[in-house]
Amino acid sequence: MDGPAFQRIPPWVKAKLTPKAITTIQEVYDWVENECIPAEEVMEAALKEHRWTTPPIMKELRKKAKARGLFNLFLPNHFEESPGLTNLEYSCCAEIMGRCYWAAQTMNCHAPDTGNIELLAKYCNKEQKEKWLKPLLEGDVMSSYSMTEPDVASSDATQISCSIRREGNEYVINGRKLFGNSLDNPEMKTIILMGCSDPTNPSKWNRHSMVLVPANSKGLTQVRNLTIMGEDHAPNGHGQFVYDNVRIPVENIILGEGRAFEIAQGRLGPGRIHHCMRLIGQCERAYELALIRCIDPSKMPRGKLIGQFDSNIEKIAQMRLEIDSMRLVVLNAADTMDLLGNKAGKYAIAQSKILVPIAAAKIIDECMQLYGGAGLTQLTPLPSMWTYARFVRLADGPDAAHRHQVGRDEMKTAAGFRDRHAKYKEGSKVLAKKWL
Amino acid sequence: MDGPAFQRIPPWVKAKLTPKAITTIQEVYDWVENECIPAEEVMEAALKEHRWTTPPIMKELRKKAKARGLFNLFLPNHFEESPGLTNLEYSCCAEIMGRCYWAAQTMNCHAPDTGNIELLAKYCNKEQKEKWLKPLLEGDVMSSYSMTEPDVASSDATQISCSIRREGNEYVINGRKLFGNSLDNPEMKTIILMGCSDPTNPSKWNRHSMVLVPANSKGLTQVRNLTIMGEDHAPNGHGQFVYDNVRIPVENIILGEGRAFEIAQGRLGPGRIHHCMRLIGQCERAYELALIRCIDPSKMPRGKLIGQFDSNIEKIAQMRLEIDSMRLVVLNAADTMDLLGNKAGKYAIAQSKILVPIAAAKIIDECMQLYGGAGLTQLTPLPSMWTYARFVRLADGPDAAHRHQVGRDEMKTAAGFRDRHAKYKEGSKVLAKKWL
Amino acid sequence: MDGPAFQRIPPWVKAKLTPKAITTIQEVYDWVENECIPAEEVMEAALKEHRWTTPPIMKELRKKAKARGLFNLFLPNHFEESPGLTNLEYSCCAEIMGRCYWAAQTMNCHAPDTGNIELLAKYCNKEQKEKWLKPLLEGDVMSSYSMTEPDVASSDATQISCSIRREGNEYVINGRKLFGNSLDNPEMKTIILMGCSDPTNPSKWNRHSMVLVPANSKGLTQVRNLTIMGEDHAPNGHGQFVYDNVRIPVENIILGEGRAFEIAQGRLGPGRIHHCMRLIGQCERAYELALIRCIDPSKMPRGKLIGQFDSNIEKIAQMRLEIDSMRLVVLNAADTMDLLGNKAGKYAIAQSKILVPIAAAKIIDECMQLYGGAGLTQLTPLPSMWTYARFVRLADGPDAAHRHQVGRDEMKTAAGFRDRHAKYKEGSKVLAKKWL
Amino acid sequence: MDGPAFQRIPPWVKAKLTPKAITTIQEVYDWVENECIPAEEVMEAALKEHRWTTPPIMKELRKKAKARGLFNLFLPNHFEESPGLTNLEYSCCAEIMGRCYWAAQTMNCHAPDTGNIELLAKYCNKEQKEKWLKPLLEGDVMSSYSMTEPDVASSDATQISCSIRREGNEYVINGRKLFGNSLDNPEMKTIILMGCSDPTNPSKWNRHSMVLVPANSKGLTQVRNLTIMGEDHAPNGHGQFVYDNVRIPVENIILGEGRAFEIAQGRLGPGRIHHCMRLIGQCERAYELALIRCIDPSKMPRGKLIGQFDSNIEKIAQMRLEIDSMRLVVLNAADTMDLLGNKAGKYAIAQSKILVPIAAAKIIDECMQLYGGAGLTQLTPLPSMWTYARFVRLADGPDAAHRHQVGRDEMKTAAGFRDRHAKYKEGSKVLAKKWL
Repeated sequence: MDGPAFQRIPPWVKAKLTPKAITTIQEVYDWVENECIPAEEVMEAALKEHRWTTPPIMKELRKKAKARGLFNLFLPNHFEESPGLTNLEYSCCAEIMGRCYWAAQTMNCHAPDTGNIELLAKYCNKEQKEKWLKPLLEGDVMSSYSMTEPDVASSDATQISCSIRREGNEYVINGRKLFGNSLDNPEMKTIILMGCSDPTNPSKWNRHSMVLVPANSKGLTQVRNLTIMGEDHAPNGHGQFVYDNVRIPVENIILGEGRAFEIAQGRLGPGRIHHCMRLIGQCERAYELALIRCIDPSKMPRGKLIGQFDSNIEKIAQMRLEIDSMRLVVLNAADTMDLLGNKAGKYAIAQSKILVPIAAAKIIDECMQLYGGAGLTQLTPLPSMWTYARFVRLADGPDAAHRHQVGRDEMKTAAGFRDRHAKYKEGSKVLAKKWL
Repeated sequence: MDGPAFQRIPPWVKAKLTPKAITTIQEVYDWVENECIPAEEVMEAALKEHRWTTPPIMKELRKKAKARGLFNLFLPNHFEESPGLTNLEYSCCAEIMGRCYWAAQTMNCHAPDTGNIELLAKYCNKEQKEKWLKPLLEGDVMSSYSMTEPDVASSDATQISCSIRREGNEYVINGRKLFGNSLDNPEMKTIILMGCSDPTNPSKWNRHSMVLVPANSKGLTQVRNLTIMGEDHAPNGHGQFVYDNVRIPVENIILGEGRAFEIAQGRLGPGRIHHCMRLIGQCERAYELALIRCIDPSKMPRGKLIGQFDSNIEKIAQMRLEIDSMRLVVLNAADTMDLLGNKAGKYAIAQSKILVPIAAAKIIDECMQLYGGAGLTQLTPLPSMWTYARFVRLADGPDAAHRHQVGRDEMKTAAGFRDRHAKYKEGSKVLAKKWL
Repeated sequence: MDGPAFQRIPPWVKAKLTPKAITTIQEVYDWVENECIPAEEVMEAALKEHRWTTPPIMKELRKKAKARGLFNLFLPNHFEESPGLTNLEYSCCAEIMGRCYWAAQTMNCHAPDTGNIELLAKYCNKEQKEKWLKPLLEGDVMSSYSMTEPDVASSDATQISCSIRREGNEYVINGRKLFGNSLDNPEMKTIILMGCSDPTNPSKWNRHSMVLVPANSKGLTQVRNLTIMGEDHAPNGHGQFVYDNVRIPVENIILGEGRAFEIAQGRLGPGRIHHCMRLIGQCERAYELALIRCIDPSKMPRGKLIGQFDSNIEKIAQMRLEIDSMRLVVLNAADTMDLLGNKAGKYAIAQSKILVPIAAAKIIDECMQLYGGAGLTQLTPLPSMWTYARFVRLADGPDAAHRHQVGRDEMKTAAGFRDRHAKYKEGSKVLAKKWL
Repeated sequence: MDGPAFQRIPPWVKAKLTPKAITTIQEVYDWVENECIPAEEVMEAALKEHRWTTPPIMKELRKKAKARGLFNLFLPNHFEESPGLTNLEYSCCAEIMGRCYWAAQTMNCHAPDTGNIELLAKYCNKEQKEKWLKPLLEGDVMSSYSMTEPDVASSDATQISCSIRREGNEYVINGRKLFGNSLDNPEMKTIILMGCSDPTNPSKWNRHSMVLVPANSKGLTQVRNLTIMGEDHAPNGHGQFVYDNVRIPVENIILGEGRAFEIAQGRLGPGRIHHCMRLIGQCERAYELALIRCIDPSKMPRGKLIGQFDSNIEKIAQMRLEIDSMRLVVLNAADTMDLLGNKAGKYAIAQSKILVPIAAAKIIDECMQLYGGAGLTQLTPLPSMWTYARFVRLADGPDAAHRHQVGRDEMKTAAGFRDRHAKYKEGSKVLAKKWL
């Protein structure tokens, strides 16, 4: 474990890695370094040409990665379909994948398919698994998770209003959805849709259902592709959609009517921080570019290398320190899920989701700044990295919503501390009598 | 002066406005509110179609604005070609222009033409003015300012290495340039190029010259359009260029050989903060969008309007306070130039350049955040606004370079304070004898 | 106006200064530089000895300043008792006073006496002025403003609960108060107390009264001196008090029963930002100390002066820029009050109160850091300066309360912007028909 | 491990605790909660009376803690004198100790004695251990570490100039020292002094020595007690000293002449982050006070509890998240030392030292703000907590110096990344041929 693949892994994590995990981490590292990063320029050129179909090089890389067994690594070892890594071990892999924006996709470890696969593996019946999960695991299709709506405050999911109404053996779906994967890519076959099936149910937690919708369903229209900071992220970008009397068979419901929140709760697991794991890798890559800029002999303002300015020396140090702190946060969240389960890991997951994206965007922004004007252009990959980090700060809900949730949970602990402090006061009085 | 056009202008500035300026500010306001902002969607659609030629609607707007006398307002009143506003008065107009990204262009007040026009008006001889300045003032052509190079630390302009060598009655230009306007737009006719004409001159401040280069010169090639955070900013984006034995007549030199720094010094005037002035307007627009989001009745997470959350109430307040502080900084810089001249305004200009873009980017970023995921998409204009503010932080040199310059100037004042504090100590000893 | 007294005054302010103001600013400068700063060590020593009585040197300085006409400068020129400066002109003086923590007191321009004098000058009848205002203006006594209470959320002043009950020709006062000047100093004679005289009044704005309470009233007890960050600020610190059936004659009421909020509104004038004005001066002083440290030849870590480290060069620049921005904010607030009145200046006052103390504390903190460990000790005056800035962030209510007020006011403007944006949309549709 | 003593310990750390450690952590928790915190008021009162002698209650607590075996817990388990905890295990204890400012002292785990004991245990010979180490371990005396000097940039220790000159069987010491424990406390017996014994040695790393100086040595004078933000921290504060021909026997040298840097290197172990560990505990305590304020029924500005304001809910969450992140950083540093040794832990130690104090000061500052004006007074312990955190940011060198060191180390890695990126480029060319 001495090579660069393991260099940033903290000792306590290293000590927990199984031999199999060590091998896998090294393989992922070799894969990303040798097969992915050198292919970035080719991929970029291919995407300009192919736009909304997966480019041939991506297809080939996926085939190769699958053949090597580097597929679906994200699926935790308690699933039977899992290749056998713990969340902690996968985190080490995911950071490495994060070094190249699209490397995770070559290994079928890309969002939202990871979260979707987890969900399907956890909640689908056998027939559903065969039909919907298997093709995803095999990497034959891509999927979408569709919850957010343009007309409500979606960070409060009880407001989701897209209607799922039963008619005979079918559900009829009507509503508008924002985000979720673009339909322009023909490989995008499956949508996991959250909608409202029982709007008058007295409990607001039992009104919603999750259903599986084929992407080519009649009545489903993509209004527009959504750009993120101007980027359309072809061939896997986001879209805005209208469901106009879309009909699906009743067997497409997951777990049963009114159980969407039960499923959503269950989805609050590792998939929530895969982005964070990869962002650490993006930060490392941005940081390396900053270091390279620091010793670029052609850039010597006032006769000194960029890296000879004390202000930049301190900036580099601060980035290093912050990236490493963020890694500790993410790894602790993964480890907590391994040891105590997803539910007990809820707070640690929120900690990652709130702290990592904002720190990552700041770090990448500073790397851009070190490159001067060129740092904002396509001459470096930094602008795309920043956009990714900025996006993750909103994906799965804005950080303020998560912070609010943590804050409300914490407020509930206040009374306990008040009582404890009251006891201090009592003790204090007793002691005052003795000593004063 | 009670209408919205004047609402944000501080009392001390209002008190200085001439009747003519008051009228002009109102006209600019009406122009931007009635002719520009409602045309934004049309302009966006037109740009998608026309890409690298100025869209017909822009041409019409420019013709109309010119007819109304709303042209070249930026040129300060000490130039004979000026429409008569002071820098302070123009700042009030520029902020309003800034509300719409391209409104300044309709009034021929867009970068880099403003800075270029100022330069040409200040340093060209009569023949040059007739040939190069007049078409710019008339709005018939567009221009570029080309200084930055990919192969040196351009923030230290003494390193500029693009060669300008005299051969008979011509200058021969060889080198590589980064930034400067894209040549793809056929209206882009004139390049003001800074290069090195006397590399062995013992004074590094006398080695460089500025020359006028026609955009269609033989030997001048555009290597690529540069994107800024992924946007190509057609039809007026940036480019990367190669000069391969480009030949221009000797009369195209400005002021004379070796005088580039003299000119560059003179260019350090109002043109340096036009971007900052307009950024204030961009911030106001972003802020208004944030406020509108705050009262959007369809967005009520947890049953409250976005604007009913105390955290957002405080955020709104903080934005308001910071925008208004930045305006005071910009207006003070403009006023200082008016009262004391560009040279004396050097520090105040730097203050604007350093503080405003970084504050603006932060404010716009927070406005995006208030919109949730939609805030990063094309559903709001906020992403483009952020990109603009982020770019300005690097345009004309990264803020760190300006901060470094200010810091070095300040260090020179330290000895004076040390001496003054030494006198305090002496006085202190005398008093100690009396009182202690 | 070329000397150091005027060095930091922005050109637009200089242009407004009357000859009298110019003379006064210079006199204040000379006073502070020659009489106050050199006396700081003596004052410190004297305070250690005298603790809760005004030291002889302070008394002599006050006598001298009064003789020179440098007394009560803060009182704006629309009061008949005013020495004749505008708020803007006084701001220039106050910044200079701020250079020495206690210099304002030598000129009878110290809080809370300034705000109290303003209040009494505005709302007292002739007899009250003679009895309570005159001694304060003469500098014979000191006063206190007592509003905050330990048992309610005092930032919401409607909750003030200290009871003022009429009995015959007397008011009887009962309650607990936090802050307000310590009674330990025998010169502290007069308390302006806000209490609740009509708790059942249907309007919560008419329940409170303000009364004048002699400091030596029977039934008034000081529970403790309050320290601020450990400092007791003798001889003028704060205290915690109990009013136990304190009786005052009915003629001690200001303006009449139930009119406390009317008075408090009127008090929301220049007195609210005197602290901010002086904090600018404190920052300048701290900044000078930082510069001196930067060139201290005995401090050369790694062979370079502190001021030769690029990181410190940038830090110095950033401080300079921020201090100057804060000054623009304060001066604009003062000028707004001069031109439009205190009420119209409400927002600008809040802008100062919110932005200046937090910026000042940050700047002084960085100056401490530049001094290494010594920066936290009594070897520099920086710790006291920081404590002062930190305190002002809470004096007159925490900044969050002010920010909340600004935010709520701003939210009221949202509907107007929503309507305006709706009009943009309409215009957009018209244009779309023409152009698309 | 379910009680409050273990509540904040991350799962990965819990999994490593030995049964003995678990017992000890619980004992430390009970000790601090039951014996220390309730005694804080008594201790404060006692300190006002006793000033520069250890108060009787402290002596009794130390005796009791020693009897319970809660003494010297900090000394890592590889020392024979150690009670047997790892650094990681001790970190859990130290955080708990940190909840009460002086609790560590009751357990003989206070700075600088911890670092000094470690140093003596590591580098002293048997006789020295008997004479100097044993009384410290027994808790009979206190010690000081004296390195910093007022006349040089002490963060660059090669500049230390205090002279240690051999004369016969004695060393003669001359020089001035800043910081190091006050001599006013008679229990302060032993000074570990770093000075320059061989100023002309060609290697600047071999010029200095460390010697043991009895506090009552002739010629040693304390110039003044040093206050930290105005606090003198009696009975264990800091001082400024003059050594005027102080003579000590040659056997008082540690390890030998010229070996100070070897010793200092060795001292760069756990002692460097004991402050950080305890600061986490201080933050938790401040955080609890903030929570208690949030539900104080007497504080309801605008009719809501402090903790019902969304802005405060988010603030509480952010504090929680940041404290927990800092803990992960500290625990990782401790664990790294356990697994790889102090030298390999150098970076992780620096990470703690740089990030924790600044984060702690910010968090405590926000807690003060939640208390309004009272938060700055003695009515809460928050001001002392802030001062402690602020001090630690400078103790052992300012954070900028540590950041600079990390930055320089990182810069050395840049060339490796440059080469790796060059290889990416090569690979890219190969792939371009195949795919483009």
